[in-house]
Amino acid sequence: MSQAVPMVDVIRGGFVESRHSGHAVICDAGGNVIRAWGDPDLTILPRSSCKMIQALPLVESGAADAAGLGARHLALSCASHNGAAIHTGPVGEWLGTLGMSDDDLRCGPQEPADIPARDALIRAGDSPCQIHNNCSGKHAGFLTLNRHLRGGAEYHEPDHPVQRAVLEAFEDVTGETSPGYGIDGCSAPNFACSLTGLARAMARFATARDGQGARAEAGARLVDAMVAHPELVAGEGRACTSLMRAMEGRVAVKTGAEAVFVAILPEQGLGVAVKITDGATRASEAVIAAILAGLGALDRDHPTARALLSRPVVNRRGYDAGRIQPTEAMLTGWS
Amino acid sequence: MSQAVPMVDVIRGGFVESRHSGHAVICDAGGNVIRAWGDPDLTILPRSSCKMIQALPLVESGAADAAGLGARHLALSCASHNGAAIHTGPVGEWLGTLGMSDDDLRCGPQEPADIPARDALIRAGDSPCQIHNNCSGKHAGFLTLNRHLRGGAEYHEPDHPVQRAVLEAFEDVTGETSPGYGIDGCSAPNFACSLTGLARAMARFATARDGQGARAEAGARLVDAMVAHPELVAGEGRACTSLMRAMEGRVAVKTGAEAVFVAILPEQGLGVAVKITDGATRASEAVIAAILAGLGALDRDHPTARALLSRPVVNRRGYDAGRIQPTEAMLTGWS
Repeated sequence: MSQAVPMVDVIRGGFVESRHSGHAVICDAGGNVIRAWGDPDLTILPRSSCKMIQALPLVESGAADAAGLGARHLALSCASHNGAAIHTGPVGEWLGTLGMSDDDLRCGPQEPADIPARDALIRAGDSPCQIHNNCSGKHAGFLTLNRHLRGGAEYHEPDHPVQRAVLEAFEDVTGETSPGYGIDGCSAPNFACSLTGLARAMARFATARDGQGARAEAGARLVDAMVAHPELVAGEGRACTSLMRAMEGRVAVKTGAEAVFVAILPEQGLGVAVKITDGATRASEAVIAAILAGLGALDRDHPTARALLSRPVVNRRGYDAGRIQPTEAMLTGWS
Repeated sequence: MSQAVPMVDVIRGGFVESRHSGHAVICDAGGNVIRAWGDPDLTILPRSSCKMIQALPLVESGAADAAGLGARHLALSCASHNGAAIHTGPVGEWLGTLGMSDDDLRCGPQEPADIPARDALIRAGDSPCQIHNNCSGKHAGFLTLNRHLRGGAEYHEPDHPVQRAVLEAFEDVTGETSPGYGIDGCSAPNFACSLTGLARAMARFATARDGQGARAEAGARLVDAMVAHPELVAGEGRACTSLMRAMEGRVAVKTGAEAVFVAILPEQGLGVAVKITDGATRASEAVIAAILAGLGALDRDHPTARALLSRPVVNRRGYDAGRIQPTEAMLTGWS
């Protein structure tokens, strides 16, 4: 097992104030590791970075089509959204078309990250609902699949048919037997895999085409939905949304809690998976940007790239007090 | 230079999901390192962990007494507070006694961490003021010293008499020439030192007694103020407040941004300084608790100790999904 590699420095006043180390893997269409930093065999919990995997059974089962879901619904099913009106509105309507309500969700309530939505709740004296949970689109997808499978109401339980279907898809696309799971922030099981397994799964999504069977077609539709609606996958000001906009539909990216980040590059047939050891999102965002720039998928001169590759640390008076930036290890060695 | 030591694990579903590494030093009254983890010579920015050092000139100059400041003011001058009413009220009155207002502060506005205070601002349609900044007590102290020194209004500038006085005290108690500074979140210079220098400074505070001169008497008064008013140094739910309450006035502790944490143990004549490499506060809180428990200053069975030594990771439905806990390296080797 290789040590974690120093990947991101936090600079203040010319001092390296903090440093983030981690692991990353790039896999090609054949599932081969073409570049790795740190330990490619590291066991990780992919957290929300694997939402497009968790959405595969929804699409390939026919449940999505039976419920009349479009690309916006599929983007939301892969989302860790901000709980803005553009997210909660469609998820609420979606639940309505299922004849269901907020009470049928099992993700739990969460204060919206979106400031206008948060402030509107506070001014109204309302508490956040489950629909505001960043995972509410994924859970609406689970509920849609569950109606198709005719499972019980507790669709988040690990031995429920919905989660068994997720596990089957997860093990197939990662090419591994999962060693277990943790319970995610939204109460769903989050299956473990190796970092290479996650990158391999992303390469599967990158190379999924129509005519390769229901799973591949489902994967291609989910990627298309993510890149078509980047604002639904995260929200304004978020790295996923900004990066997908910057790459103009050519690449899908997804963050996960505890500093996991993945990328799906259909034009190059590549999948990427990143895990920062300490779980800091500021670092996983810088690393995925460095890898996407290194692969030529992200223009280094795009404002989003510049912001993530040398992120200002701004103090309370707007003074630029430092930088968060990838280390040389992440910026060199690209052909 | 020694490698950072794995200090805290984040466990989910039986997996080590994330890990924090860092450095720590314990110094005795003579400034000697009696135990260290990682690199004791590491150069750090102490951030808010050194606020009691930044407050030394305020007290030793006589400025605090001339302004009629009591222990509550001194506790606030050492605080990274939540911006609750118990903090902003006294700081506002303090500015008033100086004939000054929010406009004289240079710390910048910050949304209060205290939820009732935050929500009250949002409901009233008001924006946060500088007084809500977690450093507003420190800055009220700077303004008080500045009136005494008759310096210009820009008291936060590194070459201003206020900051020159801070630097002189800082280099004296750390026993080092500072290699430079970074600009802090509150716009004040934050002087760099070694981790051992910071621990040595805390040992100086721990052994400061009346009759040892103005600086020592100032240090003793600041420590007394912190432990007498732990709710003013941070706020409800915060580690500094909870730990000082748990230790019932015997130990002063202080957090700093980017995962610095210090402790002052007068009964043992010891000073402690911790820096987590990646800057994660969840880890520095666990480590300072482990060290305080190891030193016998914190009862492991106290609810605050239990909460920090095995902190539950609770999901959106209140389910206990994991733990944040110190590694064996932090729990063993105590006599």
